[in-house]
This record gives sequence, C-alpha cells and structure tokens, in this order.
Amino acid sequence: MALIVQKYGGTSVGTVERIQAVAAKVKKFRENGDDIVVVVSAMSGETNRLLGLASTIQEQPTAREMDVLVSTGEQVTIALLCMALNECGCPARSYTGSQVKILTDDTHTKARIQDIDDGPIRGDLKEGLVVVVAGFQGVDIAGNITTLGRGGSDTTAVALAAALKADECQIYTDVDGVYTTDPRVVEGAQRLSKITFEEMLEMASLGSKVLQIRAVEFAGKYNVPLRVLHSFQDGPGTLITIEDDNSVEKPVISGIAFNRDEAKLTVMGVPDIPGVASKILTPVSAANIEVDMILQNVAEDNTTDFTFTVHRNDYVKTCKVLEQVSLDLQAREVIGDGKIAKVSIVGVGMRSHAGVATKMFTALANESINIQLISTSEIKISVVIAEKYLELAVRCLHSAFELDGAEVVQES
Amino acid sequence: MALIVQKYGGTSVGTVERIQAVAAKVKKFRENGDDIVVVVSAMSGETNRLLGLASTIQEQPTAREMDVLVSTGEQVTIALLCMALNECGCPARSYTGSQVKILTDDTHTKARIQDIDDGPIRGDLKEGLVVVVAGFQGVDIAGNITTLGRGGSDTTAVALAAALKADECQIYTDVDGVYTTDPRVVEGAQRLSKITFEEMLEMASLGSKVLQIRAVEFAGKYNVPLRVLHSFQDGPGTLITIEDDNSVEKPVISGIAFNRDEAKLTVMGVPDIPGVASKILTPVSAANIEVDMILQNVAEDNTTDFTFTVHRNDYVKTCKVLEQVSLDLQAREVIGDGKIAKVSIVGVGMRSHAGVATKMFTALANESINIQLISTSEIKISVVIAEKYLELAVRCLHSAFELDGAEVVQES
Repeated sequence: MALIVQKYGGTSVGTVERIQAVAAKVKKFRENGDDIVVVVSAMSGETNRLLGLASTIQEQPTAREMDVLVSTGEQVTIALLCMALNECGCPARSYTGSQVKILTDDTHTKARIQDIDDGPIRGDLKEGLVVVVAGFQGVDIAGNITTLGRGGSDTTAVALAAALKADECQIYTDVDGVYTTDPRVVEGAQRLSKITFEEMLEMASLGSKVLQIRAVEFAGKYNVPLRVLHSFQDGPGTLITIEDDNSVEKPVISGIAFNRDEAKLTVMGVPDIPGVASKILTPVSAANIEVDMILQNVAEDNTTDFTFTVHRNDYVKTCKVLEQVSLDLQAREVIGDGKIAKVSIVGVGMRSHAGVATKMFTALANESINIQLISTSEIKISVVIAEKYLELAVRCLHSAFELDGAEVVQES
Repeated sequence: MALIVQKYGGTSVGTVERIQAVAAKVKKFRENGDDIVVVVSAMSGETNRLLGLASTIQEQPTAREMDVLVSTGEQVTIALLCMALNECGCPARSYTGSQVKILTDDTHTKARIQDIDDGPIRGDLKEGLVVVVAGFQGVDIAGNITTLGRGGSDTTAVALAAALKADECQIYTDVDGVYTTDPRVVEGAQRLSKITFEEMLEMASLGSKVLQIRAVEFAGKYNVPLRVLHSFQDGPGTLITIEDDNSVEKPVISGIAFNRDEAKLTVMGVPDIPGVASKILTPVSAANIEVDMILQNVAEDNTTDFTFTVHRNDYVKTCKVLEQVSLDLQAREVIGDGKIAKVSIVGVGMRSHAGVATKMFTALANESINIQLISTSEIKISVVIAEKYLELAVRCLHSAFELDGAEVVQES
C-alpha cells in the first residue's frame, strides 16, 4: 500500500466527462489499496476566462484581488471532482489552499510555499477518504489568498508529497513523458524512461514545458520521486529521480531544451570593480524581474560588459530599470535584443565526457549558426542564437548527439 | 458621515459594465464622506451555471462540496468589484465569508450566521478603504465553507450592518421598492415609501421576492434600518423600519402577498392527545424540511386532522416522512395537494380595525373562490386556495382594500 500524490492539469479536468474519467482512475488506485491525494488545476479555459474579466476592468489588475479571482478556478474543480468521486463510491473531501493551510509568503500572483499543515489530510486518509486539494493556491500569514503563479499546481503536488512523505508524486498531463526534445520540432524525439532531477531542472528551466521548474526543485530537495504520465493513455511515463550511479552507461546528453521567451540586455562599459554585478541586479530583482542567464567576460581598459537575459515580457520594464542603473554606474550604454532564442544540451553524462562542448559548437558551425552567448554548468551547455535559427539548431544538435530514435525506426 | 452597508444582487453585478456602474455608485457615496461596506452576490447566471455542472455529476450533489463550488460565484464578484473600485480611484479590499469570519453553523447549503468578526472591516474603514464582502457564504467552526442558501446575500448584508452598527443597510435590486402586491399581477400596484419590519416579514415570508425573510428578521431584531432601492434608477425606494406610532393614520392593509411554491399535507384522524403535533413535525424538521403554515382544528370522536404546508420541492420527501409517522400514530391516512396557492393580506393597521377578515372573505366569495385553509396572525390573514384562482384572488383583494393606485391615475 503506497501513498501517492497525483496531479491533474487543466486539460485533464477540462470537462465534466474528463473529471469523471479522473475520478474513475483515482478509484482504481484506491481499489488497489493505495492512499491517494489529488491535486487539481482549474478546468482548462477557466483561468483565461477569469483573467479576461479582470483585464477588461483594470489594465494591471490589483495583485491581491487577482489571486482572490483566479483561485476560484481550482476551487470549482475540487468540488466537482469530489462529487464525481463520491458518486462513484469513492468517498472524498476537498480542500482549498487556505483550508489545508498551504502557507506562503505574501507575494501575490507569485507566492512561494513556506509550510503545509499535513494534519487534516493524514486524518482524512486514515478515515479512508481521498483528499482533493486545490493546486496553485495558498494563504499568507494574514489570511490573504495567494497564488503560486501559472503552473503552480505541480509545485503544490510536490510540496504535498514532500510534507506527507509520499511514495510517488505523479504528474498527469497531456504528454506521455519527458522527451529528448520537443517532438514538434524534431520528429525523432524520444521519450525518456528515466531522468535525474538535475537534468530535469535544466530541461524545465530551459523551456521544456512538461513540469514547472519549482516543482522539480522541490522534488529534488526533498527527494520525492516524480513521475510524468499521460492522463488518459496507459504507459510508464518518465520517472524523475536521484541519479543512480550503478545504472548502465548513460548517454552523454539526455535532451535538448530550448526557449524563445527570452530577451538579452547588456550594460556596456561598466567599471571593472567589485560590487558592480550586485548594483546592476539588485534594482532588477526589486522590480520583481527574474533573471535567467548572467554573463560577464574579462575586462579591458578597466571596464567590462555585463549581459543577462530576462523573460521577453519583462524586456521593456528591464530597459527602464537599467536606464537609471547605467547613469549611476557611468556605464557607456545599454543595448538589448528581444529576438533571441536559447538552446541547451543537458545531461549528467557530460560530467565524464570531454569534448561535448566542442561537438555542440561544431554542429552549430556546420549550419552557419552564429553563437551570441555561451553559458555552461556541470550538466548543461546553453547558447543564445538569433531566434530564426532555433528549429535548425535543435534539429542539428539532436542528430549530432544521436538522440534521434523514431527516425531510425522509420528507416528500418 | 454615515456608515452604510450596501448589497448588490446578481443582476446588479451581472456584467463587467454593471460592476463598473456599481463601483461608480459606491464612489459617489465615498465622495459624500460615507464609510461603505459592499456585499455582493454572484454574477447573474453564474450560480446556475455551477449548479448545472454539479447536477451533471451527482443527482444529489454532496452538500459540503456544493458549498465549496457555489461560493466561488461571489468570490469572483468581490475581486472584480475591488478591481473596478481601485481602477476608479476608490481603494477597496475584498473578503470571502471565510476571511471576514462570518461564522455559521455547519448546515451546508442552509447555514445560519452565528457571529461576525468586525475587527478587520473596522480597521479597513479607518484606513479609508471600501470593504467588499462576499454575500451568501460563511465558514463553520471547523473551517468548512458554508452557504446561507439562495438569497442569503441579503442576510449577510443585514448581519454585517448589525455587527457594525451601520446607519442604514441598503439592498439594491432590480425593483425600485416594495409594492402593495406584484405589479405583474395587479397593474395598479403601488410602491410603499415605508413599511414596518413586521409587515415586511409577513410580505417576504409569503412570497414577495424583494427581500430574503431571514434578512428582515435580522434587521428587525437588531433594529437595522433597511432600504430597498433600484440599482440603476434614482429614487427613495422603500424604507423598512420599526413602527412609528406617531405617524399619521395608516392604511388598514399595506400589501397583498402570495405564493405558489407550496404544497399542503394533512394527516387525517390522528388521536387528539398531547404531543401529537410534535410527533408529526419532529421527523419533518429532522429531514431538513421547512414547514410554513400549520393548522389543527377542533377534535371530533377523539381524533383530529393535522395540516401543514411545505415548499413544493419538498412535497414528495415530506409524503415519505409522513408514511412512517402515520403508522406510528395510527392515523387514518395522509392526503396532500401540490396545486395550491397562498394569498395573504398584511398590515399593522388591521390590529385596530375590525372586520378586515370579513372584508377579505367576502371579496373572495364574490368571485366564487373557495377557501381551503385559513390562518391568521396579528397583522396578517392568509388563505390557501386552488392555484388557478391565484391572480383573480390577488386582484380582487387589491381592489377591495383600495390599494389600486396607478389605475386611478390612469382613469383621471
């Protein structure tokens, strides 16, 4: 008998019929003797409907009220799913984020979970109930409703699994697992049966939309085995877990991630003295802008260039912040580009293999793709290129690292 | 500077444009220096949409989950209204029933308010904020979301007005006041500028749909001046207040109420001994069925007939309850009729006027309408008649008690 936390996204609960299908699925697990906690998102379309209502009233709707508004989406789903479970003879009880006390900080629309009261859930599970929890939402210490930002239901599920020490956290979605890259871009992309937290983290943060990055962080931190599965197709999905050193030889590269939602900014000619990076990024963070890549190369003539990337939506806002920073630092100028894309190769295998970077750069050079920025970590190499080359770059790298699967099958 | 609690119903907040119109209205009051607490219902259609979703899943949806589901309706409205208020420069903060701690008992879908924590609201008002509260909903001691039943937003408004000792509780709706009877039935029905709590209570409980009965009870009990007004037309509306004995001569009858949502049941031939009424009604109440009229006439041959009316929706359920009761009491039989209507004349004036009942019965007799049941209180006389005579009865009584206004005007 296992304790499983299952998360169903908006598409999986998008209609009454699908909610009933989820209930039937949960019932099977119950009949198998497992204890089940279900986390659900808003029915697909509902969050956008609510956002639409808000945006007709306020261009920048009040963040506190946005959370009051959009949190109703999941509240509707938990009630309907409990009804469906009760109806099929599987007793269930629902909880909003406030009720189950998913305590967060007070950053409305982007809150972070601080604590979860697992008492009521444990009590219900002991009573034989299925517990249904609204994803994506929480409550701050003052009792205000908060939300974790889009995709936050994954985080809710993993945080609950960690708090309950669940045996597995299953993320049901509209894909059947994590792929070597986006199958819409590369025909031969293959499903991975297993991937490490670290690799998944790099994949997620770089634009593989399967799982929310914070959810993977959480799962890795608390070592919660995470499995991505298709909501309505049977299959093993992809298990995300800690690295197994005893496993057979791994491929060098697990996957290729990419992201076209970024913009790059460079503060040119800043003085090469301690504290400059902090002076540039502190006001950026204060404006609630998340920074992705950060690069600073060697100095010349006692000045250097400081480059970073942000979400494309934050591009204009960031430019404004940098205007003042640039004056304060007596920098030469600020330049930026919104038409970039980031492509990354990810794999724990590259730790023990030399020449991975060379292979990547050669593959890109063979296609005459110019590299604008390079950034590396232990298990990832990212490059920024002009957006128009994105698909070409992903395809050539997928081939270069021998990830093409289905294509080979098709040839035989 | 007054403290005013305003309640806007579903039609008044039925679209984004109407929510913006409500915000503009509230702003005017604020600019006049008044402190405003606004109670809102779900946008019209929303509650029915949610009920529809539930009913496709469960024929009798779980009551606890129903409350989780439908309470989202008002939650959407409070967020949108706060955004609209903030947008027009009128700072506002929203509260769900749980957040403002409208503590109720745990009777899901029909809960009763037990206590309200007025602390946060008073704090916000002091800060100059408009406070927007979700009507119709509360929270039980265990933290479960409850609802007060349909129309419960009026009750929320009055309870808040009582807790805050507000100067006036204004109920904005789609009619411009309380009428002598339903203008759709009698063309000459007139708006009353003033009516007592007692009269309004009799009017409300008897089917004048303007105000929810529990709201009027509450208002009377705590002496909260209550005013019914049109949401989008200017006008003084109808003030519901304690009786003013110094006022000029009142009309004998203030209005004529009616109700076609009832069914009558009679337990025939029950023993005429103490405790029978209690034995019949205890299981009915236990089944959460509300009883309206209760009649028992003199006994004959040591047995008597016990009659009462219930909401028509509860008719079949009540029949079932009475089957067992009837056996236990060795009653002769249970008979019932779902096609009845109740018509009542209401007025504090009848206390000091003889012959009111005679006048009523004569008017009905002149139209050959047979009276099935009669029940009286100090300020009300109700009769049950066959449903098909309802409109005729209301019209002839409206004339008999000289309530016709507009008709006279039209003749001149």
